[in-house]
Amino acid sequence: MERIGFAGLGRMGQAMAGRLLAAGFPLTVYNRTPSRADALLDGGAAWAATPAELAARSDIIFTILTDDAAVEQVFRGPSGLLTADVPGRLFIEMSTIRTATILALAGAVEQRGARLLDAPVSGTVAPARAGQLLVLAGGRTTDLERARPALETFSRRIIHIGGQGAGTTMKLVLNMTMACFWGALAESLAVGQQFGIDLATMLDVYLDSPVALPALRGKAPLLLGEEQEVAFDVTGVRKDLLAMVATAQDAGVPAPVASAALAHFAAATAAGYGKRDLAFLVEYLADLAHRTARVAFTLGEP
Amino acid sequence: MERIGFAGLGRMGQAMAGRLLAAGFPLTVYNRTPSRADALLDGGAAWAATPAELAARSDIIFTILTDDAAVEQVFRGPSGLLTADVPGRLFIEMSTIRTATILALAGAVEQRGARLLDAPVSGTVAPARAGQLLVLAGGRTTDLERARPALETFSRRIIHIGGQGAGTTMKLVLNMTMACFWGALAESLAVGQQFGIDLATMLDVYLDSPVALPALRGKAPLLLGEEQEVAFDVTGVRKDLLAMVATAQDAGVPAPVASAALAHFAAATAAGYGKRDLAFLVEYLADLAHRTARVAFTLGEP
Amino acid sequence: MERIGFAGLGRMGQAMAGRLLAAGFPLTVYNRTPSRADALLDGGAAWAATPAELAARSDIIFTILTDDAAVEQVFRGPSGLLTADVPGRLFIEMSTIRTATILALAGAVEQRGARLLDAPVSGTVAPARAGQLLVLAGGRTTDLERARPALETFSRRIIHIGGQGAGTTMKLVLNMTMACFWGALAESLAVGQQFGIDLATMLDVYLDSPVALPALRGKAPLLLGEEQEVAFDVTGVRKDLLAMVATAQDAGVPAPVASAALAHFAAATAAGYGKRDLAFLVEYLADLAHRTARVAFTLGEP
Amino acid sequence: MERIGFAGLGRMGQAMAGRLLAAGFPLTVYNRTPSRADALLDGGAAWAATPAELAARSDIIFTILTDDAAVEQVFRGPSGLLTADVPGRLFIEMSTIRTATILALAGAVEQRGARLLDAPVSGTVAPARAGQLLVLAGGRTTDLERARPALETFSRRIIHIGGQGAGTTMKLVLNMTMACFWGALAESLAVGQQFGIDLATMLDVYLDSPVALPALRGKAPLLLGEEQEVAFDVTGVRKDLLAMVATAQDAGVPAPVASAALAHFAAATAAGYGKRDLAFLVEYLADLAHRTARVAFTLGEP
Repeated sequence: MERIGFAGLGRMGQAMAGRLLAAGFPLTVYNRTPSRADALLDGGAAWAATPAELAARSDIIFTILTDDAAVEQVFRGPSGLLTADVPGRLFIEMSTIRTATILALAGAVEQRGARLLDAPVSGTVAPARAGQLLVLAGGRTTDLERARPALETFSRRIIHIGGQGAGTTMKLVLNMTMACFWGALAESLAVGQQFGIDLATMLDVYLDSPVALPALRGKAPLLLGEEQEVAFDVTGVRKDLLAMVATAQDAGVPAPVASAALAHFAAATAAGYGKRDLAFLVEYLADLAHRTARVAFTLGEP
Repeated sequence: MERIGFAGLGRMGQAMAGRLLAAGFPLTVYNRTPSRADALLDGGAAWAATPAELAARSDIIFTILTDDAAVEQVFRGPSGLLTADVPGRLFIEMSTIRTATILALAGAVEQRGARLLDAPVSGTVAPARAGQLLVLAGGRTTDLERARPALETFSRRIIHIGGQGAGTTMKLVLNMTMACFWGALAESLAVGQQFGIDLATMLDVYLDSPVALPALRGKAPLLLGEEQEVAFDVTGVRKDLLAMVATAQDAGVPAPVASAALAHFAAATAAGYGKRDLAFLVEYLADLAHRTARVAFTLGEP
Repeated sequence: MERIGFAGLGRMGQAMAGRLLAAGFPLTVYNRTPSRADALLDGGAAWAATPAELAARSDIIFTILTDDAAVEQVFRGPSGLLTADVPGRLFIEMSTIRTATILALAGAVEQRGARLLDAPVSGTVAPARAGQLLVLAGGRTTDLERARPALETFSRRIIHIGGQGAGTTMKLVLNMTMACFWGALAESLAVGQQFGIDLATMLDVYLDSPVALPALRGKAPLLLGEEQEVAFDVTGVRKDLLAMVATAQDAGVPAPVASAALAHFAAATAAGYGKRDLAFLVEYLADLAHRTARVAFTLGEP
Repeated sequence: MERIGFAGLGRMGQAMAGRLLAAGFPLTVYNRTPSRADALLDGGAAWAATPAELAARSDIIFTILTDDAAVEQVFRGPSGLLTADVPGRLFIEMSTIRTATILALAGAVEQRGARLLDAPVSGTVAPARAGQLLVLAGGRTTDLERARPALETFSRRIIHIGGQGAGTTMKLVLNMTMACFWGALAESLAVGQQFGIDLATMLDVYLDSPVALPALRGKAPLLLGEEQEVAFDVTGVRKDLLAMVATAQDAGVPAPVASAALAHFAAATAAGYGKRDLAFLVEYLADLAHRTARVAFTLGEP
């Protein structure tokens, strides 16, 4: 059984590492903030003091980190993963970063005789804990087969999108649509609310229409005031949209819709919505319209 | 049983009028192009030579027309509906037009002693034929109750959104999100295609993700080359987005996402995609990127 | 000499009315907030308690008001201008409003036997006081000739753009470009500042380049910290952009650039920049980027 | 006197190299398409068969190339500049490329013991021929002093913006504003034209207003039908905007205005306007609106 290393113990990382551990894989973990490893260490995982140590003690190393800069640091910074002796190692990079970054990293990894899969996932914390993620894999078939037993511990399906970079790109493509949907929804619902239409009524219509995005179904109670665990926060969407729009330019695709959505998420972050669920973009934009604008007319009485 | 008038025999109008006729309502129809009425006349409907004649011979008058200008013309133009003697009549306006237009029209209708509901529908031709539309109604409860038996002939559900203007606004709000979704999807999929990722693979991922819009499920075969009846064409989306963005400004809502989507649909119309299904925006933008831009790098071999 | 009425004593209105008074025209004024008329009354102007009274006592009536709703109110509200007996009167409407609004108003004015010119101005308070505005006139030549002696008191040039609505449209067109320029400038300068380039250096380059907009020359000291009288505030730009984008939709023009600029001005208003000069959009966006985003790399040391 | 090498003989490159030659600098040139060097060779320049040969035979090497990919190729491709022995050489990179690209290149250059200035210029072909460019320099002061005599042959002013990358970034910042101005102008003028306002009248107003961009003054005759040499074509603006928007994301700046302008230039390129002057974006968008949209109302008769 391959020895697994895991760097990046945010909520997603903790859930995935927990699944690997529960499945019986020998697991070593690293995180910049050590306290996040407590539950895993209690469960039998070992601790690595640095990324280099993690790489030295593992055959397959998972990383799921905040952004491009964090990935660069953990792989190529002082005591980074690639400062260890890594021939034969398989790196599985799951962060949502620019395609350009993963491709540059893949080159550096292979120069050192190791292999890299990019394998971001679709799904949030709850499906991660339940082993129900969708893995979007980029890289060679042989590497994917080697990774499969580990990946299966936290996923319901693994899709081989293409060569290195394809998994990351697919994740960006998918999330770009998701983020834009929320940008569009926020604009749309703000129009209705400005004219006095009830939010609950509008959501009822959406969920009974061809626009009933599965993601919206889950968030409707939150939009109507129910407390929910934050699945994906506004500042996280803003960060990912930066990577998405930059990658769109790398692809030569004009992306004014995504850029407009990015501007909404950036302004919402600046307005204090950064740590709230992305669905709060709806509240942000409705509030902005309500506070700054006079409507041109009022609808009739029912 | 109330006598029904119906003006506007596009594909949606024909399907709805057909349902009314089949349900046994006495039906008179009007259309600018008379040939579109043939099937209905064969089925027992009567013909009115002008909107005024239609209004004179009906108790409840449905209208479902192309745009704001057509609605103005049919109601207030020479021989328009409102040139007839109309006290007690109930007008049911189902076009997708600006909220400002429906409100102005409601005022004119009531000045003449008649009543108006705005009641656009969600759904395309197939659900119309099957009596499975969703009616989004704005206006007074008593008027809606009077209209209900007729509305039920072509709908599976009737939602009373609010007073006059609320049905039209709800339709704009809903379609604005839909149109933006396609704008976002077109940008996103173009990024993947520029990097060589297979469209079928991407659609497979979308349909197994939280971004699996019901509308996308139906269109995926079309995106992959299957022939389909055009449900909603690019030029129609462009026209509706003009009404949506104008109404967003009336509500004081900045709508850069919708405006960017509008620009895509307008450019696609100018590029010759006007009569094709809105899903072809995906092809349009991928083609535009492919013809004009060099990608910054290529993904790995699988 | 024609008797002049003047409604709307904001800073622009006060300056223009002051020029008319100084030129010897018999002047009556009206304003919702009476205290703004003090200096003019001291200078010999008469006071009208309502718009209706203003219209009754004047031959030519100027209006320069906040927005479409204020124009509707002053003309067609209770005790509005058009409740007076107005045959033969000439109304000169100078507000920045939607083309649709001015056209509807023109119809109402002419139905009552009066005439209307739309004649917004280009220029801010200082040129107004100095009689150096540029008048953008829409309407009939005979009406413009009648208005000319009065218009010349505060303008250096009068351009007859076209028929009714053309002056208002020209103003919207011109200001749309201006507002977008500031939106573009704010985005651009934020990029440079995020990478540590000095704002003064960047402005120096701009003012020595083909992008040296005259308006930028005047605002550069303000951007570098100098106190200046507010010429045009952020919330005013936001309001005008709403009118501009709505009118673009009326014209069937997709305006994603203007819509994106509108979103910036709306968010800046919500963030507390509403009462500051439009040039502060630059500070707003630089601050937003600085607070929410990490730059991908740093430039070299000089 | 330092030996000058020059790679990239587009129209700008030819003009700048011609100035260097006329000033008496020993000049060697390289271009992918050799015929573009004819006039310079006739004037006494030497020819290098490859970039490597150019670097071997020069002390200071200028490059001004199409895009990021071309810069990568000429510097780091087979027989590229950096395959030569280059210690002590000074590279002066003048292309309009991403800040990220120039910084990566600077690192590679310095690793080989050479130096790099990034020094794009503001100005088009005519000022280049007249020695009237504005140089935007990034890099060390000592390197700039060494380059100054050569730079002065084609420039009226040299501004030291900051360290490596600052010149390139400044160029992107400046051109981003310029490109957005044209995007905004095209939207604005299309609105006026859709309502029947004369283009010449509108340009007259612009040039007598605070929006009178110097660049617009030069292009007004072209917009009114005069033939002019193409100074900067639509496809070139599209390419530069891709670099600008990507760099804005690297800086963490949401740039929806620039992204919307990029979408216009990309669509115009796809519609066949690629080789025409950027001012033709005005014609493109007016034509698109005219062909696809019905206006909501018409202005009055003058």
